[in-house]
This record gives sequence, structure tokens and C-alpha cells, in this order.
Amino acid sequence: MATTYFSKRNLHFLLHEVFKAEELTKYEYFSAHDRETFNLVLDSATYIADTLMHPHLKEVDRNQPELKNGQVTVHPKIKEYLKAMGEAGLIGAGFSFDNGGQQLPKMINSCVSFILMAANNGMMYTGLTSGAAHLITSFGTPELSEAYVPNLLTGIWQGTMALTEPQAGSSLSDVTTSATPQPDGSYKIKGQKVFISAGDHDAAENIIHLMLARIDGAPKGTKGISLFVVPKYRPDGQDNFVDNDVTSTGVYHKMGQKGVPTMHLTMGSNDNTIGYLVGQPHQGLPYMFQMMNEARIGVGMTATAIATAAYYAALEYARERPQSRRLNQKNLLDSPQTPIINHPDVRRMLLFQKAVTEGSLSLLLEAARLYDISEVAEGEEKENAFLLLDLLMPVAKSYPSEMGVQSVSQSVQTFGGYGFTEDFPVEQLYRDIRITPIYEGTTGIQAQDLLGRKMTMKGGKAPKLLFAEIGKTIADASTHDDLKPYADQLTAELKRIQEVMSSLMPYVQQGDIERYLSDATLFLELFGVVIIAWQWLKQAVVAKQALLTQNPEGDELAFYEGKIHTMKFFFHYEVPKTLGLAVRLKDTEVLTIVTEKELAL
Amino acid sequence: MATTYFSKRNLHFLLHEVFKAEELTKYEYFSAHDRETFNLVLDSATYIADTLMHPHLKEVDRNQPELKNGQVTVHPKIKEYLKAMGEAGLIGAGFSFDNGGQQLPKMINSCVSFILMAANNGMMYTGLTSGAAHLITSFGTPELSEAYVPNLLTGIWQGTMALTEPQAGSSLSDVTTSATPQPDGSYKIKGQKVFISAGDHDAAENIIHLMLARIDGAPKGTKGISLFVVPKYRPDGQDNFVDNDVTSTGVYHKMGQKGVPTMHLTMGSNDNTIGYLVGQPHQGLPYMFQMMNEARIGVGMTATAIATAAYYAALEYARERPQSRRLNQKNLLDSPQTPIINHPDVRRMLLFQKAVTEGSLSLLLEAARLYDISEVAEGEEKENAFLLLDLLMPVAKSYPSEMGVQSVSQSVQTFGGYGFTEDFPVEQLYRDIRITPIYEGTTGIQAQDLLGRKMTMKGGKAPKLLFAEIGKTIADASTHDDLKPYADQLTAELKRIQEVMSSLMPYVQQGDIERYLSDATLFLELFGVVIIAWQWLKQAVVAKQALLTQNPEGDELAFYEGKIHTMKFFFHYEVPKTLGLAVRLKDTEVLTIVTEKELAL
Repeated sequence: MATTYFSKRNLHFLLHEVFKAEELTKYEYFSAHDRETFNLVLDSATYIADTLMHPHLKEVDRNQPELKNGQVTVHPKIKEYLKAMGEAGLIGAGFSFDNGGQQLPKMINSCVSFILMAANNGMMYTGLTSGAAHLITSFGTPELSEAYVPNLLTGIWQGTMALTEPQAGSSLSDVTTSATPQPDGSYKIKGQKVFISAGDHDAAENIIHLMLARIDGAPKGTKGISLFVVPKYRPDGQDNFVDNDVTSTGVYHKMGQKGVPTMHLTMGSNDNTIGYLVGQPHQGLPYMFQMMNEARIGVGMTATAIATAAYYAALEYARERPQSRRLNQKNLLDSPQTPIINHPDVRRMLLFQKAVTEGSLSLLLEAARLYDISEVAEGEEKENAFLLLDLLMPVAKSYPSEMGVQSVSQSVQTFGGYGFTEDFPVEQLYRDIRITPIYEGTTGIQAQDLLGRKMTMKGGKAPKLLFAEIGKTIADASTHDDLKPYADQLTAELKRIQEVMSSLMPYVQQGDIERYLSDATLFLELFGVVIIAWQWLKQAVVAKQALLTQNPEGDELAFYEGKIHTMKFFFHYEVPKTLGLAVRLKDTEVLTIVTEKELAL
Repeated sequence: MATTYFSKRNLHFLLHEVFKAEELTKYEYFSAHDRETFNLVLDSATYIADTLMHPHLKEVDRNQPELKNGQVTVHPKIKEYLKAMGEAGLIGAGFSFDNGGQQLPKMINSCVSFILMAANNGMMYTGLTSGAAHLITSFGTPELSEAYVPNLLTGIWQGTMALTEPQAGSSLSDVTTSATPQPDGSYKIKGQKVFISAGDHDAAENIIHLMLARIDGAPKGTKGISLFVVPKYRPDGQDNFVDNDVTSTGVYHKMGQKGVPTMHLTMGSNDNTIGYLVGQPHQGLPYMFQMMNEARIGVGMTATAIATAAYYAALEYARERPQSRRLNQKNLLDSPQTPIINHPDVRRMLLFQKAVTEGSLSLLLEAARLYDISEVAEGEEKENAFLLLDLLMPVAKSYPSEMGVQSVSQSVQTFGGYGFTEDFPVEQLYRDIRITPIYEGTTGIQAQDLLGRKMTMKGGKAPKLLFAEIGKTIADASTHDDLKPYADQLTAELKRIQEVMSSLMPYVQQGDIERYLSDATLFLELFGVVIIAWQWLKQAVVAKQALLTQNPEGDELAFYEGKIHTMKFFFHYEVPKTLGLAVRLKDTEVLTIVTEKELAL
């Protein structure tokens, strides 16, 4: 078992030196906090991660949840973990004091998720609970909050997001689960949901589903979907809870993230499932989408955390494993073998992992910061933060997950044959991370969101804001001679994006959205590389300042120099990928749009 | 379970139309064969694959081999399979009539492997046996052949390749297993071997290890390694077999390819392991390396087969799974959902899978053809075939495996959430294929072989020969107006490779091999894209000819047009990747070579 699974030093660097988390406390909402309370929360999460999660990484993978007699049983350690999380106040950390929370910024909560998921992503339960409770506090009545939120935040109950149906995955407009109004104001729910994470298990006393359904007679498509609270056990009005006819039809056996049960649920088998409307009828999808940024930051963070744990495992192995001699000393057979970290190809793989994981973490904290400002600021500041966040989200969800998959693959490769065995954690992490480019909107969906909506909304205001932000980093970097070439390269990359957009916009004007979006995934990839390049330059500027002003030594010197080195690695090895992507994106040959004639694929 | 796992039509296209397998029968050695006997062998393999392998794909994955009381038990179907393969003559198909084989070309045997591994790569046993037997017939005495080969080729015994040791993976010069001469000419063997595929199991009556060891007093390094036959049970000279003190120390539990046991073996625990020298002392590594091309074609083919099976599963799903409407018809909520194959992004993923898998298969058959010619031709023809094969091998091993991993990842993505579940075969195939960039020489090792040896050997004769071969395809393609642009692009790509080589050669002249090879893996990637582009252009020329001369209709028309379409896809989507790779390869900034100062990675 690898002993290190994340770097506290790097987390503090990003949180305090790059993104200056404490500045958030100038807003009234966060004013009860300071740097110290932030760090205490991270220490508390680290303690839980170290003691209750990381030691069980393999165990929860090897003993996946099973459905027997209608009940799902999960690893006994899950219950202990949920209790500890509730007691530490970490499930409700982001909720207001009024709602029983700690009123902590998303930036801090995201770091908590990062630590927990790096320790053991198979224990992915509490983020779902927070998300479900957040929907209730945001859109439900005070009575609904009172009835459900306290037990959710203490970890006694489990929350879920119940969107997907067998015939409606990416296409939520095709949701068919029905809700029939009852005289008492509640609804009878009937239908099926699939892929519901933590959708049933015995570590919680009740499961509270935040479920999309269609009220009888509702409009078709996305405009007729409503949001309901559908508990596993419902209150009978006399302080008792009765079975709510939510049947566990099946538990999926999966490639990874085996610790958390992914459920197929059936509502209303006995015509006795009751749901409680959250907010207004037919507003379910807008409500869900207001939570989407939060959920997608969560997925990006999970991917980053998994890839980070794999990177540290690979790094530890590469430092210790001797194999062969250095290439210019091949004939020195009497000399001992060298640790593989000294081979350029292994070092390249490690730098790639460091570049991907620390670049992703930086972007996600940037997104979390924007999230916080969009919540607590006012006027233009709030609006701009929201627009920027909206634009960055498809990248912040997909880059960490897509590139995280590649990164863990390089972790496996660093181990050679041992990486393929269960003797080391990387084979499990390789399986675990593969879901992240799929859930909460596949990469293809993120790409359509980015190019089809975010780049053009409000007359293209979001990319204008973003380019201005990136411009600030470029200006900062340009003041240092050794960073200036990279600042210039980033300027050239922004121009490249604009050229690509110019070549694509005519399709929009022609109303040919299918053509406009046909290579959207490649645009997302190109955009992602540039965004991460920005994040690396930003980190390099801070590191450079520290080197100039703090005169660091030893580990600190190596840390800051490592940041600048990895920035260079990203620009020299990853950024050139934009060349090929731009060529394809500006290419006029259509090869993926169906015509009348069916090709033999 | 997907019903199709490979395309017989495509196999016949490559074998007969592109590579004209029957032309091999003009050589005396293959003269007993014709197109019909070739096809009969493929049909025989298909029958075994359909009936004894594919139906057990999941089963052998879910019931991995276990070591109990010193004996490894495998799935009972394995024994049935080995028997059938022996009876069909498929284990020995490539051996000479004298050695009890069918004297079939490697081209045909490679197609057999392709079919078998596409059906169920977890039953990867017989290729190992053929390889082991081939070492004995090639370098051993007639007595050794007589004693071991017949039972290997009938599938009653299992053969293995026992190279790797705990401290010697990529670095075979550090092998320490010892061989002490005995008065009777045999050797006492002592040491440990790890990662020995099929290294022990109960489906074979005996296990015959072809093992590398160092005779007492042998020179250090690669020049002191000898090859031995080390059986699990050895003949006692009186028609009995006795235990040869080869202990199964452990069976690795792995991420994939779970059907085949990967063993940790200990020789000489009781000082009673006897080995029989194969060929001359200290020639073990040259012998092994003479078999390496064969073994690496096998790995490339396994990777291609796995990715092909995943592609057909994804294709079937994409044709059947309705989800959402086409992008220009988003508002037609009353219309039924469209099969996802009609979404450009899904079609892009499928074309990528088709381009990678059929491109890889084409390259591997090219390599197999060269292998055959290098075996049976004479003089310059033989020598040139051998040089070309040697040059292509690093690509033929690594492109199918590296890009196969990517391809299966896109198969998973095509399925969305279902791809992550055990309900469909792609999650297993995703796990299975991940070993292929590791075994038989990791991608990093292949890259060093390509750039460090193959590009420069004999004064660079091999790339000259290759470029001349590619030139022929370019000339053929240039005669067709619609293929000419691609021919021109391929010419430009060859120039790009030459430019990269020109920028790297000074490092060789300076004797700085570490710098020369520091980005060898990227060179391999660049070279691989160009080689596969060549294979696609070659296929497109043949398809174009068929369209012009055969006037095909229906499925045949679609097949040939699909070939040209996929060639275009490869040139428009994959070839542009060379731009970024070349930029990095010509870049003078050094970022991966260790200097005095340790960076904080």
C-alpha cells in the first residue's frame, strides 16, 4: 500500500498561495472563518481519510455490495465512516449555519472531497448526501428541509440523485417516471431509475432520493419534469416510518468504484410509493441544472484525487525500484541498477502525471473559488463569476476525468508488470477512474455544452471574460524573463482558439448545429489543454515570486522549482497537441455525419 | 454478450486482397498449400473460437486460477480447449512437417491467433506452447525435440517462456537464476522467475519452461545467459516422470486476462531442479531475441483482437441503443429517439475504433508476411524482409497495444454507464488489454529498440527500405484523383520523420545516447501514426481498385466504401497528431534527464 496519497504541501500552495482562500472571508457569509479554521477542516478530513478510509481501499473493492432478499449490504466500515463524517460536521460543512452547516466555502469543501477521494474513492457516499440535501434546502419548503436535512447531514440517512432511467441517460427530456397528485398534496410515483449511486444500502437508516418525474399531464420534454423527494421509508405522520415501496431491483456489478452500490430501483410496484414535490412543478430540470456545476466539480475532483493517489504510488515505486543502468552507462555491469526514476522515459511519465493531476486540481480550485464568489458576491462580480464558472465547468469536469484516465494508465505503466497485479493499488485506481468521463454528463455531452452553449451564450461574453482573466496571468508572467516565452506561447494559444471559433461560426449562422458540433469533443480537448496551460503558468508565477522573495531552501526550494519545471513540461509536451487538434477543427472534410447511405462500419 | 467479435470479411480482404497470402505458396516450403487450405484453417479456428472459447469469456474472467496445496487449478474448459487445439493441429500449425506441423505461414497462424484472442483472450495458452516448442526445434538437439515437442503440439503439455525475475524485468542482463553443470550433461537450476504466463496449471499434464539462467562462472551481463528446458516433471530415464522441484510460489491476481495463471516459480528449493541446455552455452539471449519478433507479433495480435471484439460490441450497441434526437432535430420531441450511431460524436468514436483495429491488423499481417519471407526466401529478398520486419516490430507490438487501450476505452465510452458494468463485455476487455503495452517489452523498451537500434542499424538501411515500400503505395494511390491528396500527405509525413531524425542524430554523434533516446516513446508514437497511415492508404488503393473493376453492390459496395472512408478518417483525425509530436521531438529544451539536483516531483 502506498503511504502517500496526496500532497498537503501542494494543497496549501494552491489554496493559500495561488488562490488565497482567506480572501473569501472578506465576504459577510464566510466572515466567521480564517486560514486557521480552513486548515483545521482539512486536518479533520485528513484524519478521517487516514484512519477510516485509506486502510480499507482494497477491502471495499474486493467485497462489493450484494443484493439479498431486497436489501443491499455494504462493507461494515461504511457505517463507521458515515458516522464520523457526520460528527465532524463534514457532510454539512458547506451548508449555512441556519441549515445546521459550517458555512464553509466550496473551495474548502472541494479540498475535503479531494482528500477523502484520494484516500478511498470507493467510499463515495457523502458527496451524494450533501448534493441531495442541498437541493432540498435550495428549492424545498422549510417543512421539507426540517423533515429530511438534519438526518442527512449527520450521516444517519443517505441522499441520492435519481435522474437516469433505462431509456433516458444523456437524454433527460425522455424521463417517463410518473407522479400522480394525491389529495393531501403528495404524489404517487411510478417508474424505474438506473445507475443510482448509493441508491440502497444498510449503512444508512433511510435513503432519500431526489428524483425526477413527470406529473400527469405535464408538457413533453425538458419543460415537464419535476423534482421530488422520494424516501425509502416515509413518515406516516405519527412519528413512524413506513416502507415507501421503493424496490431494489438490482445492484450493478461494475469495473470499479465497487465500494459504493449502483442501484436499479423500481418505484410503485405495489402502487404505494409517495413523493413530495420540491419547489414548483415542471421546474425539476432547471433545479437540477443549478446543482450541476457543484456535482461536476465533485466528479472532476474525484478523478483528480484518484489520479493523484495513483501518481504518488507510482512515484514511490519509481524511487525505490532499481532496474537497469542509465543509458550513457549501459556497459557498467558491475554498478548497481539505478532506480527507474532516473530513466528519462519514466521521468517523462511521472512528470505527465504530476502535470495532469496538479493542473487539474488547480483548475478545480479556480472553479470552486468562482462558485463561492457567484454565491456570495453581488452585482457584476457575482454575474461574471457565474459566467466564468459556467464556461470552465465542461473543462473542469472532463479534463481531470479524461486526462486522469491517461494519467493513471501511466501510473500503471510506471510499475511495469506489477502495475497489472493486485499487489499494488494502481490497477484498482485504473478501474475506479474509468467511470469519471461517463457520469454527470459524458465527455461528449460536456463538449456540446461548451461549444453549443457556453462559448456563445450572452453574445460570447464568457470567453471574453476568460480571455481577460488569462491575460492577467500572461501579464504577470511576462515580467519574468524566464516565464515570458511561456506567456507568449499562451497568447498564441488563445489566438488559435479564436481562429478555430471563426472557422466554426459560419455553421451556426447557417443553422447547421449538427455540423457545428460534430467535432465538439476535439474542441473541448483543445480548450482544455489551453486552460490547464493557464493554470500552470499561474502556479509558475506564484512559485517564481516565492523563489525571488522568500529565498527558500531544501524541500521548499525543490517544491517551487518543481512547479516551474512542471509548467515547462506541460508547455513543451502537452501544449503542442493543440496543433493537430486545430488542424482537424478547421478541416472542412465531413466524415462523421450520417448521410442517406449507410457505410459499413 | 455481443454476437460478433471479428469480421471474417475484413480478414479475407486483408489476407487475400491486400496481402495476397496465396503468393507465399510459390515458395517451396509453403507449396503444399493454397487459398482453400488457408481458409479451412481459419474456419477450423473459428469453430473452436465459437464453440469452446467465446461462450466462456465471462466465466474464465470471474473464476480466476487459484493456488492450493502447491497446485494451480484453472477453469475446466481450458483442458477441453487445449485438447481441441491439439487435435485440430493448430498448436503446431506453423511447424514443419518434419516436426509434426502443418508448415503453414505465419500470416495464417497470426489470423488464427487473431480469431482465438478476439473470442476469448483469457484462454491465452497455446501461443505460449508454440513459442516454447519453437525454441526447442530451432536451437535444441533432435533428442530434446523428440522428448518434448510432440506432447506440446498436441496440447497435452504446456510450454512457457521463463525470462523475468524479481530483480530483472526489462533488464534481462541482470538475470541471476543459476545453472550448475552435472556429470550427465544436465544442469541443476536454482532461482526464481516471476510473471510466468501459464506457468502452472492442471489442464496440462506437464509444464515445460524455456528458461533463462546463468551457468556457473559465465560472463556478466547479456553475454552469459543460457537457455534451458526446465520441465515441471522430468523423465527419469525409465519412462517415468518425477517431480522436478519447480515450486509454484504464488499466482498473481491481476486486473485482466484472469483466465490464464501468471506464476511466481521457485526452482531448486530442494536442490533438485534439473534443466537441459538448449543449443550453445551463453547463447540464451540471442536465441530468445530470434523468437522475439514472433512473440511480439503475438502480443500485437492479442491487443488487436481484444480491441476488435470491443469494437464490435460497441458497434452493435450503438446501432440498437436509441437516445436523444439528431442535433438539427432537437425539438422534435414526438419523434422517436435515434440510435446513437447517428450522433457524430458516437460515429467519431466508432470510426476511431475501426481505424485503430483494422489499421493494426493490417500492419500485423504485413509483419507476418515479412516474417514468412524472411524465413523461406533467399539472398537479398530474405535479408531485406528481415530488416523491414525488424524495423516494423516495435510499432507492430506497441501501436496495437497502446492504441488498442485507447480504442477499448472508446468502446466503453460508446456504451455510456452500461460500459462500466459487468452486463456487457467491454469492461472486461478494457481490463484485459491493459497488459499488452507492458509484456514482451514495454512501450518504453520498444521505443528504445526502434530509435536506438532499428533506425540506425546497417547505416540506416531499414528505414530506406521501408520508405521505398511506402513509396510504392504512394505511387499506386497517386494514380487515383481522390486518393492523391492522401498520398501527398503521406509523402509529407515521411519528410517529417526525416526532419526529426536529422535533428536527433547530432546527439548520437556526440555520444549522448541518453539525450538521443530521451523522447524515444514520442518518436515511436509519431512513427506509428505514419506506418498505420501507410497501411490505410494501402487498403484504400485495393478498395478503390475493387470499386472500379468489380462493380460491387450492397454489402460489398458498403464494405469497400467503408474502407476508403476510414482511410480518410485516419488521415483527417489521427495523422495531424504528428504535428505536435514533431514539435516536441525537435525541441531542444531538456526536461526529463536527471541532473545533480533532485526536483520535487
